[in-house]
Amino acid sequence: MTNEPRRRRSADRANKGSTAIPQLPLQALRNPYKPMEILSADQVEAIHSAAVHILEKFGIEVMSPRALALFEKAGAKVNHATQTVHVDRAMVDEALKTAPSSFTLTPRNPERVVRLGGDALNFTLVAGPPNVHDLERGRRPGNLRDYCDLIRLAQHFNCITMLGNQVCAPVELPANSRHLDTYHANLTLTDKSFHVSAIGRGRALDGIEMMAIARGMSLEEMRESPALTTIISVNSPRRFDDAMADGLMTMSEHGQAVCITPFTLMGAMSPVTLAGALAQQNAEALFGVVLSQLVRPGAPVIYGAFTSNVDMRSGAPAFGTPENTKANIASGQLARRYRLPYRTTNGSASNAADAQGAYETLMSLWGAVLGHCNLIYHAAGWQEGGLTASFEKFIIDVEMIQHMIETLRPIEVNDAELALDALGRVPTGGHFFGEAHTLERYSTAFYQPMLSNWQNFESWQEAGSLDATQRATRLWKKALEDFVEPALDPARREALDAYVAKRREAIGAGEP
Amino acid sequence: MTNEPRRRRSADRANKGSTAIPQLPLQALRNPYKPMEILSADQVEAIHSAAVHILEKFGIEVMSPRALALFEKAGAKVNHATQTVHVDRAMVDEALKTAPSSFTLTPRNPERVVRLGGDALNFTLVAGPPNVHDLERGRRPGNLRDYCDLIRLAQHFNCITMLGNQVCAPVELPANSRHLDTYHANLTLTDKSFHVSAIGRGRALDGIEMMAIARGMSLEEMRESPALTTIISVNSPRRFDDAMADGLMTMSEHGQAVCITPFTLMGAMSPVTLAGALAQQNAEALFGVVLSQLVRPGAPVIYGAFTSNVDMRSGAPAFGTPENTKANIASGQLARRYRLPYRTTNGSASNAADAQGAYETLMSLWGAVLGHCNLIYHAAGWQEGGLTASFEKFIIDVEMIQHMIETLRPIEVNDAELALDALGRVPTGGHFFGEAHTLERYSTAFYQPMLSNWQNFESWQEAGSLDATQRATRLWKKALEDFVEPALDPARREALDAYVAKRREAIGAGEP
Repeated sequence: MTNEPRRRRSADRANKGSTAIPQLPLQALRNPYKPMEILSADQVEAIHSAAVHILEKFGIEVMSPRALALFEKAGAKVNHATQTVHVDRAMVDEALKTAPSSFTLTPRNPERVVRLGGDALNFTLVAGPPNVHDLERGRRPGNLRDYCDLIRLAQHFNCITMLGNQVCAPVELPANSRHLDTYHANLTLTDKSFHVSAIGRGRALDGIEMMAIARGMSLEEMRESPALTTIISVNSPRRFDDAMADGLMTMSEHGQAVCITPFTLMGAMSPVTLAGALAQQNAEALFGVVLSQLVRPGAPVIYGAFTSNVDMRSGAPAFGTPENTKANIASGQLARRYRLPYRTTNGSASNAADAQGAYETLMSLWGAVLGHCNLIYHAAGWQEGGLTASFEKFIIDVEMIQHMIETLRPIEVNDAELALDALGRVPTGGHFFGEAHTLERYSTAFYQPMLSNWQNFESWQEAGSLDATQRATRLWKKALEDFVEPALDPARREALDAYVAKRREAIGAGEP
Repeated sequence: MTNEPRRRRSADRANKGSTAIPQLPLQALRNPYKPMEILSADQVEAIHSAAVHILEKFGIEVMSPRALALFEKAGAKVNHATQTVHVDRAMVDEALKTAPSSFTLTPRNPERVVRLGGDALNFTLVAGPPNVHDLERGRRPGNLRDYCDLIRLAQHFNCITMLGNQVCAPVELPANSRHLDTYHANLTLTDKSFHVSAIGRGRALDGIEMMAIARGMSLEEMRESPALTTIISVNSPRRFDDAMADGLMTMSEHGQAVCITPFTLMGAMSPVTLAGALAQQNAEALFGVVLSQLVRPGAPVIYGAFTSNVDMRSGAPAFGTPENTKANIASGQLARRYRLPYRTTNGSASNAADAQGAYETLMSLWGAVLGHCNLIYHAAGWQEGGLTASFEKFIIDVEMIQHMIETLRPIEVNDAELALDALGRVPTGGHFFGEAHTLERYSTAFYQPMLSNWQNFESWQEAGSLDATQRATRLWKKALEDFVEPALDPARREALDAYVAKRREAIGAGEP
């Protein structure tokens, strides 16, 4: 971690004396250790070769005439009857030459810049659930009020370094223009980078235009200083639909990042074996990388992984399983094979913010971290396999993420830390509570959790025997109370309002 | 993992059609990946040097005249007034030459043999809590009935490869003879290795004698084929009390294993810094290693680690914290520096078997696994920082341990696993459910959890909206119903009964 002990201390001091929830300071997160390798070099190459075989022999269906034309022009074999593109090894290698190994995304607040690639580590708010849940109000369809509260929480906690795509679908708003409302909320209630919706050209472009307004920039300037990314969800197996292909091309044209994420659920959209699913994931991700580089060589692109298994008795997706955890580690080896930034997910299929939610999420989180993932998507708030954004789960996840960040902070070893003076002074069987070495450090020596309860049983019982999930309710409420809306230049805000009004009207009149 | 796909499949078949709780088969657990290194080689040496400084300059208090005499005879500087022993670098190096880098413990069922050292991995039942808890009966003092139920659970689940010391204190039994009752239960209700209580010579010897009876062996044969281990808990800082030193010497004399475990709670019994706590842990552990090798060169000994932090506001111990997780990884580097088997713990301070219990335990479990721990003590059932053995937590922990074991199973990559035939056959946007490649493998392709619920929300709600903790209640009850007492030769059982009767009488008459 690059966070300095000094910065940490001052943040802890800032927490002290106030009633604020303790949290880690704003910092550029890094993973300083060697990535774990669970595939041998030979195995990585075998999976790569299988992926090239898929691309060359089986091909990828692309439902976008524009994309088909691009591939054909670049020399790919295109079967127009089946809309299938066959990309060869040379074309993949060519794309990998121009795709950047790392890049930054700069939102309207440049202090919130996000680095992707290398040993950078980022965590996003859950994205995409149709439902919302908290312990007091129960489960309900996504809506703008909850949307805004959830992104306020993501803004409040420093360890959430960017927002994903819509944290929940605000279903009371018209489907064809609700992206304007959510972008507007993202740009006014937060100052972090976010994922635009790239279902079609229009939604992507609206995100880019609105971020440019919020940054006070032209689209040309934004092209050289990207701020946004999007998830291109492949319709696995081997299909890029029209809207996603167009979204991808729009983002790449404008120099914004795309993350190509095959959805390779083993046994359903992928072979039941990890090797087969990883080969397919690789083929589909590389195909998207090639498309991005055909649109604009050097366009920022992320290797996305989402390999997990299904419950073979019901076909239901499962997350945080051993297979998912292994895929998270192995996918990092594949992304590094291509020198591409790497995205994956920590998830759970649990219907509650309970022990299962915690262990499934933490298993896949460790897999992602050991795989040196740069962008851990859906990192906070994911419940029910992604069908629900949970307020309590958000708090539990932030706590687990903070544990992980602190675990990655290197151990200092020097004379002061070795404490031989104190060790020689404290008598055998004695204690260190009163030692100067302890007193000088005790207030900042350890990570201070917000959710963990370390009371003895009797005190805990007197305080109501609240479990972690019940305590999380208090914490998200407190964080919403403490939320501070980040300042935004009034002229830019006005321009954003105007953009939304104009586009809403245009969309109402049938424009895309 | 050495578990063969074949064995796993047959175990799965054995589960199938029956109502048994699915679980992993009996297998020799291995960690096949490289250990994580969070200390540099220089940092490891600095911590080692600091430990030697502590041993040479500050010394260790040993409250046992026998041990003091042994050290003195071996050339250590002994201050009899303070009972302090000063061991130098050469004496440490000498002990490390004879201490074995790995060994086995063979209980009465040789199939349950436990390997310690190298890449072996073992998980034990929680040990030592004064209290017991389950959701239905609440919290209560330890007692023999719960003791027996908890060790039945440990016997039932294959991933628990040995028992710890007393899973709970059966407080209704006389304190000076209850070890006879618990050993008897261990040897009749289970056929796994266990930890004896080494508080004094008598308790250790009773364990050794009773295991010898159960194996049909003499003490001389047991000396060459160890079956047991014990935890020597150092009274940190720098004190070995009389009972523990005598227990250690008794075990080593009889060729049984000892695990030297300093209890280095940062800020309380140790410096507030990780480097200082690790240096102290190292010094105390190495001191115990030296003592074991003075008693009997080649006696099996384990490097124990138990470095965590306290809550600096209350002084209460915390577990599963980032500091604890880092200590678990770093301690593995230290143990490997000495080529000694490594023991640590996964713990939690949570008062409930809730999300906190899960994430704290899983954080420290990952630390232990990444540190290549050979003996993960208290691995299942630990609650309230070790003050309570919890039935529900036991089930949650077994589930997390099984997740970990399956995550450590290497990915196979070959033509059959890469599944290119199936990948070429399934149409774009199609699915793999009906593919021969899937059908041939689906029933054994994925780890099948016992606790995780992957139902959709509506089905889960109809089934009563039970969270993982509530579902765990059903599982431990079912496991107790399904429990099968392992066969024991009636003559040996009779001999065990007679030994207990004789010793109970002798202890009653004042014998040690």
